[in-house]
Amino acid sequence: LASDGSKLWGGRFVGDNDPIMEKFNASIAYDQRMWDADIRGSKAYVKALEKAKLVTTDEMTQILQGLDQIFEEWSKNVFVIKPGDEDIHTANERRLKELIGTPAGKLHTGRSRNDQVVTDMRLWLRDAISTLTDNALQLMSTMVERAAAEIDVLFPGYTHMQRAQPIRWSHWILSHAVALSRDVDRLQEIKKRVSVLPLGSGAIAGTPFDIDREQLRKDLEFDGISLNSMDATGQRDFVAEFLFWASLCLTHLSKMAEDLMLYSTKEFSFITLSDAYSTGSSLMPQKKNADSLELIRSKAGRVFGRCAGFMMTLKGLPSTYNKDLQVWKCVFVQNGNDFVSSDVSAVFQIKQSAMTAALSPDMLATDLAYYLVRKGMPFREAHGISGKAVFAAESKNIALNQLTVADLSAVSPLFESDVSSVWDYRSSVEQYSAPGGTAQRSVAAQVEHLRTCVLQADPLTD
Amino acid sequence: LASDGSKLWGGRFVGDNDPIMEKFNASIAYDQRMWDADIRGSKAYVKALEKAKLVTTDEMTQILQGLDQIFEEWSKNVFVIKPGDEDIHTANERRLKELIGTPAGKLHTGRSRNDQVVTDMRLWLRDAISTLTDNALQLMSTMVERAAAEIDVLFPGYTHMQRAQPIRWSHWILSHAVALSRDVDRLQEIKKRVSVLPLGSGAIAGTPFDIDREQLRKDLEFDGISLNSMDATGQRDFVAEFLFWASLCLTHLSKMAEDLMLYSTKEFSFITLSDAYSTGSSLMPQKKNADSLELIRSKAGRVFGRCAGFMMTLKGLPSTYNKDLQVWKCVFVQNGNDFVSSDVSAVFQIKQSAMTAALSPDMLATDLAYYLVRKGMPFREAHGISGKAVFAAESKNIALNQLTVADLSAVSPLFESDVSSVWDYRSSVEQYSAPGGTAQRSVAAQVEHLRTCVLQADPLTD
Amino acid sequence: LASDGSKLWGGRFVGDNDPIMEKFNASIAYDQRMWDADIRGSKAYVKALEKAKLVTTDEMTQILQGLDQIFEEWSKNVFVIKPGDEDIHTANERRLKELIGTPAGKLHTGRSRNDQVVTDMRLWLRDAISTLTDNALQLMSTMVERAAAEIDVLFPGYTHMQRAQPIRWSHWILSHAVALSRDVDRLQEIKKRVSVLPLGSGAIAGTPFDIDREQLRKDLEFDGISLNSMDATGQRDFVAEFLFWASLCLTHLSKMAEDLMLYSTKEFSFITLSDAYSTGSSLMPQKKNADSLELIRSKAGRVFGRCAGFMMTLKGLPSTYNKDLQVWKCVFVQNGNDFVSSDVSAVFQIKQSAMTAALSPDMLATDLAYYLVRKGMPFREAHGISGKAVFAAESKNIALNQLTVADLSAVSPLFESDVSSVWDYRSSVEQYSAPGGTAQRSVAAQVEHLRTCVLQADPLTD
Amino acid sequence: LASDGSKLWGGRFVGDNDPIMEKFNASIAYDQRMWDADIRGSKAYVKALEKAKLVTTDEMTQILQGLDQIFEEWSKNVFVIKPGDEDIHTANERRLKELIGTPAGKLHTGRSRNDQVVTDMRLWLRDAISTLTDNALQLMSTMVERAAAEIDVLFPGYTHMQRAQPIRWSHWILSHAVALSRDVDRLQEIKKRVSVLPLGSGAIAGTPFDIDREQLRKDLEFDGISLNSMDATGQRDFVAEFLFWASLCLTHLSKMAEDLMLYSTKEFSFITLSDAYSTGSSLMPQKKNADSLELIRSKAGRVFGRCAGFMMTLKGLPSTYNKDLQVWKCVFVQNGNDFVSSDVSAVFQIKQSAMTAALSPDMLATDLAYYLVRKGMPFREAHGISGKAVFAAESKNIALNQLTVADLSAVSPLFESDVSSVWDYRSSVEQYSAPGGTAQRSVAAQVEHLRTCVLQADPLTD
Repeated sequence: LASDGSKLWGGRFVGDNDPIMEKFNASIAYDQRMWDADIRGSKAYVKALEKAKLVTTDEMTQILQGLDQIFEEWSKNVFVIKPGDEDIHTANERRLKELIGTPAGKLHTGRSRNDQVVTDMRLWLRDAISTLTDNALQLMSTMVERAAAEIDVLFPGYTHMQRAQPIRWSHWILSHAVALSRDVDRLQEIKKRVSVLPLGSGAIAGTPFDIDREQLRKDLEFDGISLNSMDATGQRDFVAEFLFWASLCLTHLSKMAEDLMLYSTKEFSFITLSDAYSTGSSLMPQKKNADSLELIRSKAGRVFGRCAGFMMTLKGLPSTYNKDLQVWKCVFVQNGNDFVSSDVSAVFQIKQSAMTAALSPDMLATDLAYYLVRKGMPFREAHGISGKAVFAAESKNIALNQLTVADLSAVSPLFESDVSSVWDYRSSVEQYSAPGGTAQRSVAAQVEHLRTCVLQADPLTD
Repeated sequence: LASDGSKLWGGRFVGDNDPIMEKFNASIAYDQRMWDADIRGSKAYVKALEKAKLVTTDEMTQILQGLDQIFEEWSKNVFVIKPGDEDIHTANERRLKELIGTPAGKLHTGRSRNDQVVTDMRLWLRDAISTLTDNALQLMSTMVERAAAEIDVLFPGYTHMQRAQPIRWSHWILSHAVALSRDVDRLQEIKKRVSVLPLGSGAIAGTPFDIDREQLRKDLEFDGISLNSMDATGQRDFVAEFLFWASLCLTHLSKMAEDLMLYSTKEFSFITLSDAYSTGSSLMPQKKNADSLELIRSKAGRVFGRCAGFMMTLKGLPSTYNKDLQVWKCVFVQNGNDFVSSDVSAVFQIKQSAMTAALSPDMLATDLAYYLVRKGMPFREAHGISGKAVFAAESKNIALNQLTVADLSAVSPLFESDVSSVWDYRSSVEQYSAPGGTAQRSVAAQVEHLRTCVLQADPLTD
Repeated sequence: LASDGSKLWGGRFVGDNDPIMEKFNASIAYDQRMWDADIRGSKAYVKALEKAKLVTTDEMTQILQGLDQIFEEWSKNVFVIKPGDEDIHTANERRLKELIGTPAGKLHTGRSRNDQVVTDMRLWLRDAISTLTDNALQLMSTMVERAAAEIDVLFPGYTHMQRAQPIRWSHWILSHAVALSRDVDRLQEIKKRVSVLPLGSGAIAGTPFDIDREQLRKDLEFDGISLNSMDATGQRDFVAEFLFWASLCLTHLSKMAEDLMLYSTKEFSFITLSDAYSTGSSLMPQKKNADSLELIRSKAGRVFGRCAGFMMTLKGLPSTYNKDLQVWKCVFVQNGNDFVSSDVSAVFQIKQSAMTAALSPDMLATDLAYYLVRKGMPFREAHGISGKAVFAAESKNIALNQLTVADLSAVSPLFESDVSSVWDYRSSVEQYSAPGGTAQRSVAAQVEHLRTCVLQADPLTD
Repeated sequence: LASDGSKLWGGRFVGDNDPIMEKFNASIAYDQRMWDADIRGSKAYVKALEKAKLVTTDEMTQILQGLDQIFEEWSKNVFVIKPGDEDIHTANERRLKELIGTPAGKLHTGRSRNDQVVTDMRLWLRDAISTLTDNALQLMSTMVERAAAEIDVLFPGYTHMQRAQPIRWSHWILSHAVALSRDVDRLQEIKKRVSVLPLGSGAIAGTPFDIDREQLRKDLEFDGISLNSMDATGQRDFVAEFLFWASLCLTHLSKMAEDLMLYSTKEFSFITLSDAYSTGSSLMPQKKNADSLELIRSKAGRVFGRCAGFMMTLKGLPSTYNKDLQVWKCVFVQNGNDFVSSDVSAVFQIKQSAMTAALSPDMLATDLAYYLVRKGMPFREAHGISGKAVFAAESKNIALNQLTVADLSAVSPLFESDVSSVWDYRSSVEQYSAPGGTAQRSVAAQVEHLRTCVLQADPLTD
């Protein structure tokens, strides 16, 4: 009459599911990656059951041993998924029953897949965040040390992709490292909200048994316990937050990759990509393409797509658990793989001579205006005068610093022979010594600040 | 010195790729699904090479036989992917060389992976669209026949989730079938743009050899050839169009699923979901959940996420081929699996009695207003009078049709004893006999129209 | 020759802009909302200029008086925007020059629109976040007090939109309040990152003058100063973070609105929406639609759309300021208006009798299984037995609690006459007394916890 | 007792709306842009009412005259919106009643705002599509004529932002024109689906009166009538389609803008942007920024954001009209303004000398391989040999064409003195004469093809 019971929920059902439905419904292909988290959660839970007198000490021991064996099977890649295993939770419980028999049937007492699934996800994501934090810190550290090593190199700073002002090359590196350090900060805030124990929330109403949730929290090393059982089982804010975090972090890496691709064009020639991180063309023998950078650039789109899709799914749901959430159960487990933290110092070399050659006198037009400001002219007027000097040089088809003092004083009588001091890139850069600026002193302070950030965020130094 | 040549592009490179880079760069895990398209494309191409005297007839024969053998290996699932196979195109050419030796090296003459990849994608998508069209037509047909069979059932039409007017149940079914028929129309338009041959575009500039592109088009059964080689290799509009199409189509299915979930709640009880398409709860023995409908509802989010991610990637690219596109090469191949076209008539049964019981006299308030309109009262005024009658009935805590003629004539003297004729759901529905309305005649005409649509769109009837 | 100078950048340009370009380029229509922030920023900046000896004390006084007058003009809505005013920054400086003449030309010394714009945006957003925090806390407080007042009402808890277990109505309210409290937490984290001073970063390289950035920070009440001038002027992470925050918060409100709409259908009838928050139909006199809830539901889509669009724009940009960012300068200023914090207690009344009537014995099937668990049966087996009881009752077309002890003991001999104690909704609910559960004690603890959250987050109590 | 009746739906309501609700609910600020469409729809509808004997000929005449006067008031910008006017439909009907009294109350007979709103939107969008088509054709035409005029200019074709092969400058222009021509095609397909009359669908069930929908269709110049009244009033597919169309079209313009920005950098220097389409910096006097291009680049993000938000809203809705749709009623009306079709030939000048100078011998490495292919070497081998030649030249730090015949024959004995013929950019380009290639003949054929496309799509030539 009723179906066989290999399902966790079959009692009231007549006949089997349509095979198409069974396949459509299964998530095991994805969620098996959480096998470790699922076993850890069950081990903690059976201890709570024993404390609540819902299993005997002996039953607990059998269950723990069975779970340890399942852990070993997964570790050694010999766990066999069977046709009825609709998800990792069913698979592990089915296997437990095969291994230890009747006591396995007590493990799920007072628990629902609703609180089990979300506990597993939180355990899984908490570990992934640790790995990501390490990777991000390592990348930051590489960038900061490269900035320290190459601090003497000047090159053009761009706005609107047009040459703007001379800056230190390290200033550019640090502008990206600073963005990464914000990403690390944000990730720690998210981790705090991920690390909240939902177990003990049942399907929706809570647990009717004497389950010690505070002990569960300690055993599973969560930072807090969930406040409301309906919210605990039905909300996935932490997934949404994480996917958006990954999108923004990858947008930062995309921006850096975009700059580097530009700098590696023949026309810019500021950097040379290592052969080890480039690929060629199947048609054009001379091509060396920055595929590694292009792939990094593409990831932000892919991950933001997941974020957008997840938000759209969430948006259409009423309260509590709905199966729609299953589809996303493991989408998010893939993101850990989307980060590469290579030894950036090996990826490319800079071409200092090309960088220096790209500095041009018109990039000092702001300094020319400041020359006048220092002689008392209001900036707005000085800006106009300097613009006229630029126009004069362009009209004559000469560089801005080739205008004679006579040429310049035709534009403003304040120009005198000491204007020649303006045409020095290095002293121009050194003016920007206020905090955050591009002077040697200021860049070195940024390096120091970020070194400290890395050290403080590094979990190993705690 | 130079690397070994297992790559299609290694000549100018020194040393090997970083293994991380190699893994990062590879797309074979995804794009192997296009093995069939890749082989078909190469078979057509070698014939063009022979016609252009770039391979001899004998070499052509060897290449064709080699490709046939590779086809067989893939078909029988015995093709072995090797470590250096960065993508399906490299894997097939590598295998060809193993099988037939030197002539294999001529296959790629004048071709670039840029035009090869996009040719494969278009072949693949063209086939997927045919399958999707069949599935959609089959679903439409099931819906239309169910509408025909259940045409006599009335139930409440809702707007804003509030009971609005009595309508035929079939009218509801057809409202979703009409949306699907637009989806089918759109898909045919997209297919037309997918079916354009890019082969012969090289990497960017075209082909310098005497390749007969018109013959290639015929061999590969495309409808047209690409107009500009830069556009042909660098654009992916057809993927974006398709992903958006899938998002909108799945949004239609989501909307239908949402309605059905509502109708299957205990509170509505208009339909009963078959056990074969439901699942239960691991905690609550009485639960029967509409998981199949929830999963359908979730797919629109997932697919739109892919569309959004793809658009974001496209948006950030300059002209021509960039590696960013690789990430998306096979994302799109997954969408074919996201459609289920089950026998909807088996998924649920309707509960006609509950549907009828849900019709309530206040749903005829519009008819009450029209009663007055027919007696000459301007509609705006009649609407107000009818609203007052509704308010009067609510105040007395009785149904609208329980107001006496005296009660009604207190609101307007135009009400007379013939007002009783208003309180008949079936005759109310029959009034809506203009095209598109819910009267029997009009619904039957819709059934007829959609049957014709299905027949005309069915490729088998061509 | 050169253009007239009403622009801030005209010196080197010949001839005027194309009028289409001028209109296309202008952002004043949007960014004028930041007039207040722009004036506050300039007032602090002129003080820093005076300290750095770039303006005299007398010039500073004139500039401050001029800015105060402009403030007054905006306050009184009499500020006149002129054709050349491309943005709020240009407009205010143009007006300053009209009012005080030459010294106005010194205000922009060492400053760029790049650091000015982002300073204004941060000031503006910081204030908006304060308002949003207040609104969210007020809404939370209303919800918590309503939960406290209606704590004795039971109604069905749903999962998958199907009746699951009896819960307290307050438990439902609090599940939404808890989500809001996370939103408030997140918003404070974002505020911390918004409150970082970029002024003194110039266009890209920093400031070459002796501008005291620490003093500027104090004057403008920021929490920190930016670390790197390139990052400071080119990044908009804080806008992206905020837009995503708003999307997630509105998704929470959407979810609550979705539940309430369902509860307000005729079929559920758990709540009655007040006339004051409903609208009617222009056609159907009896309709009362929950338009207010539907509008709340729609806002998440609109705001997430802005987030998605902004991310797509960011994704395609290289480092530093690009004009693309202008389009988004004030998109974000609109979001403050998208929140409504009404007196929720007035929006709807609950219908306690309908809620109670919706509780049905099958919702106690889990308790029936627990009855067996307490008699020693493993849960997995008890779940199956209870499921069979549900099936037996459905087959007999009776309620689950109408099965006799004989009926039940046919399914399992452990059932005895004390099974009757299971059929009490109130004692069922009281079992769930662990933290987060739906028992009276547990819900009251949640109320208390959230009251404390509101008090602690309330800026007035600092 | 009941509210005053200025609303179209007040009869059954007690008391007024909360003023916050009233403001929250109103859409007049946005939807007033559809005043023209609303009046046209009503004029057609009153004629249908007269034909159905629901208004007298005299009443029809009064209503038509009233509507004409309202039209004039809007045209002259003197229409006064009053506080109760929640939307454009209410505003126009309210004004009609003021002008002609009682007969105004008959205009809405059998009509609902549900079918009225969507009729107005379709009329509005149909007109917008005509304008957009004209603009796109004009832009295409400008591009095609520029390609014809500058057909003799060669410059580097890029893939992965790296120099690939020499191509014609016109080939680049046409690659973007071809994308636009697909956009025009798609827009016509969408127009066909926009041009479907929903009027006569009522709120949900259809019309119970003898409204001649076919005549309405003719009067309003629609191409077809809606098939099902529930679908007609509740679906917004045409808006979703249009927003996605706009996103993809703007992505094409963004891609073109991205290329042009790259070409206008100092480092590339292929084009010079006209002063009339550039702006400067408030800080750096020498800057000339391609703001017009950056603004075009940003629009795709903004519009796709609208598309994403709209899809998210649609995704969460059940069947038929829900108020959520109102929010989007007029979002879409803004998109017409997001296109600029300037005289592209005035926006920038090309610098032919810089383009020519950027061609480098390594870009002929493919031709070098083809040289060997023509001597019988398999392409795969020839590719490797050519790659080795590239490596040899790089090792010697000389250009590829500076390798002596001796150098080359060290790599392959097939190289002979006739290899010198390879080093000619113009003859290289002329090889690519197959359809779609970059040879003069092939590019000229593309010009001709697109000229024909423009002529055929131009509505004026019908």
